[in-house]
Amino acid sequence: MTDIKTLAGQCRDASQVLARLSSDARCGLLASMADALDADAGTILAANERDLQAARDKGVGAAMLDRLALDRQRLAGVANALREVAALPDPVGQVTRDDTRPNGIRVQKVRVPLGVIAMIYEARPNVTADAAALCIKAGNGVILRGGSEAIHSNTAIAAALKRALRQAGVPDAALTLVEDLRRETMLELLQLNDIVDLAIPRGGEGLIRFVAEHARVPVIKHYKGVCHLYVDDSADLQLALGLLLDGKVSRPAACNSLETLLVHADIAPRFLPLAADALRARGVELRGDAATRALVAGVAPAEEADYAAEYLDLILAVRVVDSLDAAIAHIRRHTSDHTEVIATGDPAHADAFVHALRSAVVMVNASSRFSDGGELGLGAEIGISTTRLHAYGPMGLEALTVERFVVRGEGQVRS
Amino acid sequence: MTDIKTLAGQCRDASQVLARLSSDARCGLLASMADALDADAGTILAANERDLQAARDKGVGAAMLDRLALDRQRLAGVANALREVAALPDPVGQVTRDDTRPNGIRVQKVRVPLGVIAMIYEARPNVTADAAALCIKAGNGVILRGGSEAIHSNTAIAAALKRALRQAGVPDAALTLVEDLRRETMLELLQLNDIVDLAIPRGGEGLIRFVAEHARVPVIKHYKGVCHLYVDDSADLQLALGLLLDGKVSRPAACNSLETLLVHADIAPRFLPLAADALRARGVELRGDAATRALVAGVAPAEEADYAAEYLDLILAVRVVDSLDAAIAHIRRHTSDHTEVIATGDPAHADAFVHALRSAVVMVNASSRFSDGGELGLGAEIGISTTRLHAYGPMGLEALTVERFVVRGEGQVRS
Repeated sequence: MTDIKTLAGQCRDASQVLARLSSDARCGLLASMADALDADAGTILAANERDLQAARDKGVGAAMLDRLALDRQRLAGVANALREVAALPDPVGQVTRDDTRPNGIRVQKVRVPLGVIAMIYEARPNVTADAAALCIKAGNGVILRGGSEAIHSNTAIAAALKRALRQAGVPDAALTLVEDLRRETMLELLQLNDIVDLAIPRGGEGLIRFVAEHARVPVIKHYKGVCHLYVDDSADLQLALGLLLDGKVSRPAACNSLETLLVHADIAPRFLPLAADALRARGVELRGDAATRALVAGVAPAEEADYAAEYLDLILAVRVVDSLDAAIAHIRRHTSDHTEVIATGDPAHADAFVHALRSAVVMVNASSRFSDGGELGLGAEIGISTTRLHAYGPMGLEALTVERFVVRGEGQVRS
Repeated sequence: MTDIKTLAGQCRDASQVLARLSSDARCGLLASMADALDADAGTILAANERDLQAARDKGVGAAMLDRLALDRQRLAGVANALREVAALPDPVGQVTRDDTRPNGIRVQKVRVPLGVIAMIYEARPNVTADAAALCIKAGNGVILRGGSEAIHSNTAIAAALKRALRQAGVPDAALTLVEDLRRETMLELLQLNDIVDLAIPRGGEGLIRFVAEHARVPVIKHYKGVCHLYVDDSADLQLALGLLLDGKVSRPAACNSLETLLVHADIAPRFLPLAADALRARGVELRGDAATRALVAGVAPAEEADYAAEYLDLILAVRVVDSLDAAIAHIRRHTSDHTEVIATGDPAHADAFVHALRSAVVMVNASSRFSDGGELGLGAEIGISTTRLHAYGPMGLEALTVERFVVRGEGQVRS
């Protein structure tokens, strides 16, 4: 088996061919990748069935099986997502600054691909196609290291995508699927800081911490989303209730779902009973502080750990706060730098909330569930960053590029 | 002595006060910091004399002594540099995107400070003031870990700057000078990825590699600048000669100076003798390939290692190449991703050179010595990045911030 350093080096070399393709050529390549997925549907689904059978034999749970499973419709959805990525505006070559210095040199900043991106992920085989498409659209080579549960699916998907690369005249090492899934091989990959420009781990917190702690290459990641909704004393109650239900109930397992509700003391007697009824009707368990429990019967006491928890489930921590500043202080202490929301009718309170918090996404009177690349207009999402560097929040194509300087003169010298 | 984790946590807390200052208040703070340096000039120069004496006692060389030395004029220059930073446009709060989605939510991207920046540097005490000023101007806390040679100077400078912080109502931990210079303490600092958002090492390649290899916090750095000048067959000879002399001779110890000259074979017989005469007249030693040595007498043979060397001295590696593509291939093999220059009269060759290379700065008919934050219009420079992430090339104030999302709605939900 070829060692990972050699594979990564081949990916880097291939990425330089990819980076020199025109925007139209990369767009056509993405469309061909989608077509290749459609053409190979039978092979891919058969491979997926092997993964599913192995998972069933191991007795994995239903949720995991569902994440792993492909069918004709899901696969067609993956192919169509690639066509959407193909149609997105190309960040490569964008000029983000263009000015002429007093000495006459013209200084531009121009977006170029990052180079080689290593995706480290778990069960979902659609990530193999989605992530590859985004990286390649932005002119990057991609090294895909998926989970062992999806190895047959991932291999079949990668084979289809690699065929499209070859047909476009790009060495297919531009998309490299790591077949050696030993942990020490992943560790070796994460040390290759002369070759790999960025690692993006996606999956459970354990995987992400492992990558972050062992990588010598730059890593962009988020561990968890402990998203807060603060209901200000000036909030419209129905508006706040709408944000609360959408944020907690619509998809509790998503990282942009709410985990903690903070309510101003002056509005709590009216809001909390209303909120508790609506949440309980939807199966949500509440855990609250003493003030909450005084207003709503049957609420379990919240421990300090509840305010740090990402439940990813129909559970909500609740606290009554005396002021906007107390809400801000609570969020600062417990933030995961992901998404925070204020429901308020007071523009000054909205501004104070926005300015006081430095989370990746801060929302005023809008649902935390909009904290998503597609919803925020990025077109697609390669991941979410709570690392306050390079990209912060949902990451789209632009986050897979970097700006560099291009300078043009007529012989100017400095001395 | 307070442990480094506690110090760093205090810096982070103080940075949040700093981040909430208005732009005008931060501007005034920078001016006060400059005034404090002027006011403390006597104390600072006395402290610097202690460092110089200790360095002389150790028998350090003249170049190092010069880097360490302050005098009234240099210190006034440092204070004035702070006033210039104060006057720079404030990146914090800049809105870099503002659009409304079909569902009516308004999505903005707004620049916020990174948080806490650790500067790791060597002898120059002016970095203490320069780096602190840039970090603070952009609303960041800064942890300064300078070298032991400059400890008295750095302490005196930091004391002046901290007084200005306190006078502005900012806890002076926003500027934290590390007094415990043991290597294990630096290592501990570089592990604090929950507190430190970015480490910027500045100094020799050894220090930078040490930081990059041991940090768990993100690091932005460049190891070296092996800058290339390619003289195309279409180049104006006098223009190319001007770029060559400025790039090699004006400040050979700078990272943006030229290390390698590549000359197209068709122009080499006319250009190389001219260039060799001019360079030798300025004391430059040439090391060339066989073709170079056939055209110019007395050139030492270049080893492969010469083409990878950052001489930082009056030495130049020279190679004759058969084509633009051969020049590009040479640069790709030896690039340090810093700065590359083409001298050409052919716009198509210029474009091909720019597109084929992914170095941080690519120049057409302009001196490599312009690869500098001030020269490129950034106003000031905190460092140069050859890390293809976040910032690539000279880094100014903007590189000390990150864009995050601010979303405003009227109660929109996703489900």
